[in-house]
Amino acid sequence: MARPDLPRPTEDEIIARYLAPLAGPGGLGLRDDAALLAPPPGHDLVLTADAVVAGVHYFADDPPLSVACKALGVNLSDLAAKGAEPLGFLLTLALGGGWDEDWIAGFTTGLSEAAARHGCPLLGGDTVRTEGETVIGVTALGAVPAGRMVRRTGAAAGDRILVSGTIGDAALGLGLRRKPPAAWSHGLGYAARAHLVDRYLHPQPRLALAAAVRIHARAAMDVSDGLAGDLAKMMRTADLGAEVEVAAVPLSAAAREALALDPRLIDAVLTGGDDYEILCTAAPEAVADLTAAAAAAGVPLTVIGTVSGEPGAPVFRDPGGAPRTFARASFSHF
Amino acid sequence: MARPDLPRPTEDEIIARYLAPLAGPGGLGLRDDAALLAPPPGHDLVLTADAVVAGVHYFADDPPLSVACKALGVNLSDLAAKGAEPLGFLLTLALGGGWDEDWIAGFTTGLSEAAARHGCPLLGGDTVRTEGETVIGVTALGAVPAGRMVRRTGAAAGDRILVSGTIGDAALGLGLRRKPPAAWSHGLGYAARAHLVDRYLHPQPRLALAAAVRIHARAAMDVSDGLAGDLAKMMRTADLGAEVEVAAVPLSAAAREALALDPRLIDAVLTGGDDYEILCTAAPEAVADLTAAAAAAGVPLTVIGTVSGEPGAPVFRDPGGAPRTFARASFSHF
Repeated sequence: MARPDLPRPTEDEIIARYLAPLAGPGGLGLRDDAALLAPPPGHDLVLTADAVVAGVHYFADDPPLSVACKALGVNLSDLAAKGAEPLGFLLTLALGGGWDEDWIAGFTTGLSEAAARHGCPLLGGDTVRTEGETVIGVTALGAVPAGRMVRRTGAAAGDRILVSGTIGDAALGLGLRRKPPAAWSHGLGYAARAHLVDRYLHPQPRLALAAAVRIHARAAMDVSDGLAGDLAKMMRTADLGAEVEVAAVPLSAAAREALALDPRLIDAVLTGGDDYEILCTAAPEAVADLTAAAAAAGVPLTVIGTVSGEPGAPVFRDPGGAPRTFARASFSHF
Repeated sequence: MARPDLPRPTEDEIIARYLAPLAGPGGLGLRDDAALLAPPPGHDLVLTADAVVAGVHYFADDPPLSVACKALGVNLSDLAAKGAEPLGFLLTLALGGGWDEDWIAGFTTGLSEAAARHGCPLLGGDTVRTEGETVIGVTALGAVPAGRMVRRTGAAAGDRILVSGTIGDAALGLGLRRKPPAAWSHGLGYAARAHLVDRYLHPQPRLALAAAVRIHARAAMDVSDGLAGDLAKMMRTADLGAEVEVAAVPLSAAAREALALDPRLIDAVLTGGDDYEILCTAAPEAVADLTAAAAAAGVPLTVIGTVSGEPGAPVFRDPGGAPRTFARASFSHF
């Protein structure tokens, strides 16, 4: 990928040529030491920082546009789950050995597209080099009306559990990106394959749901480490348990096609990472309003289970009622 | 350093054991997906993100307490130069191959001390692993009364140029940390050596000067890439020039001792990086109030020159009046 025959741009050139055009007003053209943001009156700030690392969170040969989409997307996903509207982001780009100007150009093009799509301008950051792998750190800022951030803890016994979109696509897409690809993938049609890989490469933060979640949900988080593991985390913080019907978990047509080829993939679907969907709970009487608001926003929210007052690991029940056990309940990138 | 015989803590263990105790109220115990901050009414937010990388910004065998002091300090230095009071910070810790629990314990102890000293609690972040070198990204948030952030651009012809503390210590300290140490270092006394290395390892953000700079200065930035290069940057953004008297640049006793051993070190003093002092300009009639406020805050600000209406590289004049030329005007870590 790298083209060592071409001279690399300097830090100042990267900033002036590729990053300054992405800066919002608060970024001051990236020509000051800091960014300036007038927080919207009557609002709280919601802050999140997530990094993606080459060889850990993405493949070093993933397209740089995709890497940018993931680096910003995983952070905006956290804002969405908290019910926050994005204000802007800071980027810390630690460039590892293999970069060249084409990579920077592709990465910043992807970043620009994602930032524009989600109304989240670049505010500032730092560009450094590292002898190791590229590390891309993003800090995203959002706003919620004062006191209205949706906490991870906050579920109550009897709440319905809901997830947005579909679950498991990215985990299956990861299987397709591996070399060699997973054995089950050979029977998969082109469209399904493209969908799953796209879901792995290009997480779509559910910002369209932020307002619905903020108004109607009692607890929320994004699903980044797998549905089973993240639901367990959410229940642990509230000292509660959960019952989930596996058959109710929303799946894409592509995931259903993969499951038809190998039913054992249901484990990867339920415990794999990188979904970047919203997991939330709502009082039973709030569910209709919540799902209607989500439908109106264009992203379905599906009821998959119920919060129980018995603390413990969430129970995932197969259609016959038998509880499933997972070899590994949660995905960890660490 | 690493002790592969000992099991490493997991990400969750690192967070619970070492990072959660540093979290301020807005950090929500690091048990949510995001941090929550109620911005002070009537204030603007000032945001800065700087990363330090093992082998680039610090030596991999620097004490982890020192690395933490530097990672937070370089960011708080930006806030100080903008006249901002710290609100908190987010940490993205990408742990490279060589880490062990002792390193984490030392690093977080140093972080805790620096955060407490500067009133800047941990709000959130991310802990990831990398196959490469450790990359430590910090995003720091500060507040200034609305409209009062001190810009880098903002100097006017005739302004006096001032710097805080002393210049060049860290660049000389870097020479002492190199293996083998610089030749001139052998004649240096123990106290001078300790002072210079301390200044390299432990940048002290000049937050004590934030209010004085905010009230009395017209332009400000921190000196991170060398006095000559950073002054050139400041003048470029304002389309101005500058005249500096080299003899007026404030030096520590340790730096004077080194210069007596090798007068050529003046180049390293004026162009070396890592000072983390404040460089600012003030109208001539504001200088007395500015220096008095700085003295009252316990950190001297010294007049070193004058802004000129002639755009161009700042001219550094020796006592005889001759302009100096530098082999390399600015230090770049990139």
